Amino acid sequence: MNKFLPEEELEQRISRIREMAVETGYDAVLISTNANIYYTSGYVFSGFVYVSVDGGCLFFVHRPVGLEHEKVVYVRKPEQIAEKLESMGRKLPEKLGLELGRIPYLQALRLAAAFSQRELLDCSALLAKARSVKTDFELEKLKKSGVHHCQSYSRISGLFHEGMTDKEFQIEIEHRLRLDGCLGQFRIAGGSMELFMGNLLVGENADEPSPYDFAMGGEGLDNSLPVGCNDSIMRPGNSVMIDMNGNFTGYMTDMTRTYYVQRIDDKAKAAHNLSISIHRALSDFIRPGVEAKAAYELAKKMADDAGFSDYFMGHRQKAGFIGHGVGIEVNELPVIAPKSRDVFEKGNVIALEPKFVIPGTGAVGIENTYVVGDDGLECITDFPEELSEL
Amino acid sequence: MNKFLPEEELEQRISRIREMAVETGYDAVLISTNANIYYTSGYVFSGFVYVSVDGGCLFFVHRPVGLEHEKVVYVRKPEQIAEKLESMGRKLPEKLGLELGRIPYLQALRLAAAFSQRELLDCSALLAKARSVKTDFELEKLKKSGVHHCQSYSRISGLFHEGMTDKEFQIEIEHRLRLDGCLGQFRIAGGSMELFMGNLLVGENADEPSPYDFAMGGEGLDNSLPVGCNDSIMRPGNSVMIDMNGNFTGYMTDMTRTYYVQRIDDKAKAAHNLSISIHRALSDFIRPGVEAKAAYELAKKMADDAGFSDYFMGHRQKAGFIGHGVGIEVNELPVIAPKSRDVFEKGNVIALEPKFVIPGTGAVGIENTYVVGDDGLECITDFPEELSEL
Repeated sequence: MNKFLPEEELEQRISRIREMAVETGYDAVLISTNANIYYTSGYVFSGFVYVSVDGGCLFFVHRPVGLEHEKVVYVRKPEQIAEKLESMGRKLPEKLGLELGRIPYLQALRLAAAFSQRELLDCSALLAKARSVKTDFELEKLKKSGVHHCQSYSRISGLFHEGMTDKEFQIEIEHRLRLDGCLGQFRIAGGSMELFMGNLLVGENADEPSPYDFAMGGEGLDNSLPVGCNDSIMRPGNSVMIDMNGNFTGYMTDMTRTYYVQRIDDKAKAAHNLSISIHRALSDFIRPGVEAKAAYELAKKMADDAGFSDYFMGHRQKAGFIGHGVGIEVNELPVIAPKSRDVFEKGNVIALEPKFVIPGTGAVGIENTYVVGDDGLECITDFPEELSEL
Repeated sequence: MNKFLPEEELEQRISRIREMAVETGYDAVLISTNANIYYTSGYVFSGFVYVSVDGGCLFFVHRPVGLEHEKVVYVRKPEQIAEKLESMGRKLPEKLGLELGRIPYLQALRLAAAFSQRELLDCSALLAKARSVKTDFELEKLKKSGVHHCQSYSRISGLFHEGMTDKEFQIEIEHRLRLDGCLGQFRIAGGSMELFMGNLLVGENADEPSPYDFAMGGEGLDNSLPVGCNDSIMRPGNSVMIDMNGNFTGYMTDMTRTYYVQRIDDKAKAAHNLSISIHRALSDFIRPGVEAKAAYELAKKMADDAGFSDYFMGHRQKAGFIGHGVGIEVNELPVIAPKSRDVFEKGNVIALEPKFVIPGTGAVGIENTYVVGDDGLECITDFPEELSEL
């Protein structure tokens, strides 16, 4: 059974990586992390995707058994890859890129030794850049996730009942998402980020700082995973920010909507509406060629001008960005932050999340996922944005 | 608010690491991954735990803001650690251990440069070894997870109804576990392992090979996460193996029980009972000082002698181990495998999972988590083991 990408799609992705490898001066790249193996093959396997500039790509598979594809070559360990290449009459690379930003130091040394590399060269930045521009095939997966994500969100307010804790509400939302086809897995690049099925933030807990580099925090339920809901009762006047997992297809959309229990104060309402206005302004502003940091500055200026600086992107602790690429992982390129060097390209898929934390009320604002096109942003998480009562 | 370990517990863990660092010839170790930061502080924060052999340990924290503890020193980036140490009048380490088996190559280089290290030295193996012997405080957390895990399992069969798919059943179990206090997060060491909330394997799907190095496989629901249930209807004669997440305390127990729909064939019954017998034999055999590979061989021999070699630890694809340490992560030391060099120690916590895949029926067998004590194994997932009808 073929589990891999259609040939044309595979060729498109591999060609792009090959071109970037040529530009960088590499003879080949060797890919060994799940997210990048999935990107370059369409299937997560244990092993390596090998892309050389002078030939096709090969899938060196350790597990599972039984894969049938012309590109599949079984190996028990990485040291066999060079042997196999030689036995196929293929020249070994003099300059081999490895995912040095992702794979452990000791693994990098082992792979470099297996290819007799004198110097360790990084291809993780190159792959991140390649992945930041989505193919039509990928856009279809993202749009499908967006449709499911919205369908699930439309069922959220029906899950609430008075006297619930934030944790109980979160669990019911998780359950709903899973029944609706959410795969559960929340893929994040970088070992220091962790989250289970998304983040629900109610009332004051939104102002609890968390160690992770997400836009919002929360105390969490345990010191081993200090983020998100903290099992407190949802009370009248609390805002309820829902930022839950949109991985329905292997590609994730990112969407936040905010509700409240019974009533909410005017400052929070104004901040929520400001978030919506920032989305509108960014939708007009972002185009291929625009600098990501300029988008950040525009959002920041709107928050400052409205007198909401103290609450923008957090209150006690602030996030340093207002948006990020999404796709196979939730934190892809471009990064929309003050020091970002990224420039928007056609085919980027970005989540924008200008949010506010209002002391005493909680977090407000929305997040949408957009495709960057020649004419601006196309929203793929099309769902009512107003602050509404649960 | 203090989120860190009680002083005595902290001192016990840090002393052990310090002793091991001295033995290895290191002046200090620098810890930067979530699992090891949690182990050495009791709390996941963004930053570094620094343990020097000639002084106490320090928590260099990037995020969150507001932590109050005498060991906390705030830093924006790792390059500041050396400065801070110097300003505190502390000698910089000549030999610094880094988690080279865990942190990305580029991060390792950056940290080494920040400490002007000429040579990169690994402390990840040392930390894994330290973590493999649990303290009383940790054992309490593991036992508490075990109690909750069993309570949740006692509610599983009530969730089944005729005509359900494996996916629907899995989702109801996830929901039950979460309501019962399961934290959801399934911590695994190594970037190439992934799983969402555990594995439910029904019928023939148990014989579908998966890329991951888990004991059992399954096709999964999507090529982006090819393991576990595959949305097929649970039919009479199918075995139903339930191996779901036991993380209730930041420490995970690992437990598998097997059920069946209406009826099950005799060969599967016999294999299940053999799994129980292997548990009994291993409980008598494993003691501090016994080699892990000898435990594997005993289990393997029992499977071979009973004529079940073809089904032991998988059928189309086989796992290369019958057990593993558990704790903060699900794949800790010792590893109970043919080439393991590990020797059981008092205070190890291990999951044993001699399992069988019977073509046409599915996976059978049980898994328990045990504490290794002077008198043998203490089971901390005490729950009926017999194959039973759903």
